[in-house]
Parts: sequence; structure tokens; C-alpha cells
Amino acid sequence: MIGRRWAGVILRELLRGATRFRQISDAIPDITDKLLSERLKRFESEGVVERVVLPTTPVTIEYRLTDKGRALEAAVRELSVWAETWLPVDGETDPVR
Amino acid sequence: MIGRRWAGVILRELLRGATRFRQISDAIPDITDKLLSERLKRFESEGVVERVVLPTTPVTIEYRLTDKGRALEAAVRELSVWAETWLPVDGETDPVR
Repeated sequence: MIGRRWAGVILRELLRGATRFRQISDAIPDITDKLLSERLKRFESEGVVERVVLPTTPVTIEYRLTDKGRALEAAVRELSVWAETWLPVDGETDPVR
Repeated sequence: MIGRRWAGVILRELLRGATRFRQISDAIPDITDKLLSERLKRFESEGVVERVVLPTTPVTIEYRLTDKGRALEAAVRELSVWAETWLPVDGETDPVR
């Protein structure tokens, strides 16, 4: 689950407080909306994220980390630290893939 | 790289001191030799593992973590801690996939 392409980076944005689709996609320029949507659906099915529909007009969709999702913080942080040290800047930005 | 199926579990075994192909495969009953070989080749190409041929008769092959590989220890540990808490025992044993 955390191993799929971009999963680690998406989690990092959620952990930084992003809750809206556009917030997350803006923070990850290289990801397509289709892939981001797939990853968020997968996170939802695995209980890492919950999708909340707010009764605004039009409705607002928020993606919120569950306790299970928030508990990945340490792993995501350690992977980011590793990536900063060991991955070339122009190369792979998602160390988890 | 750490995100591919079984990658996290293989790294964990290497971090625990396994250096031989059979040691690693015995520790991960569900992995095929073909997949383990692929993963080790990938780790080698990414500089996480080095493959050492010892001049015994027949030769002995050892897989040793590089500094880059050993630096993944914290991330692998955090993922294992997360998995023990959040993943069903009968379910996914490799939290990274």
C-alpha cells in the first residue's frame, strides 16, 4: 500500500495537513489526477484515509487521515530523510516506489 | 524501490544479518526464488546491496547491505512497527507493498 508509486509522497502531503484533492495534486506536480484519485481510493479502502463530504453548495470533499494513516508518520518521515541523503535530486523523488 | 512487493521484508532480513540467498528465502516462505532474485538484482542496481563472490569451491555468493542500504534501517523498522499494530496477522505481511 505505501509502496505504490507516489503513495509515500501523497501520505506526506496529507500528514502536512492537505485535505483537498487540488491541494494534494498541486503539491505533486508530476502526478496525474487519475493516479491521485486511484491512490486516494486505495488509501480509503485500506482504512488509511477517510473521505468526508461536507454539506456545502456545491459539496466539498475532504480526505482525512485515520489513526491508522497518521500512524505511518514515522515511517514516511524516515523514508523522506533517507531519500534526501541517498537519492539524486533530479532523480526519483518518491523513495518508496 | 522499497515499495515493490516483498522489498521491505527482504531488507528486514538483510538488516537482521542474512547474507545468503537461501537464508533470505528460508526466512520468507511465500517468496519465489525468481522474485527474490529479481529484488536482489534491483537492490544491487540501486546501490542498496552489493553482491560479493567469495573464492570458495564452489564459489559462495553473499549479499551485503551498502551504507545506502543500511541507512534504510529506521524506515524499515518504523514500517514493521506500524504493520504489527495495524495489519491483520493473517493478512498482508509486507506493509510496504
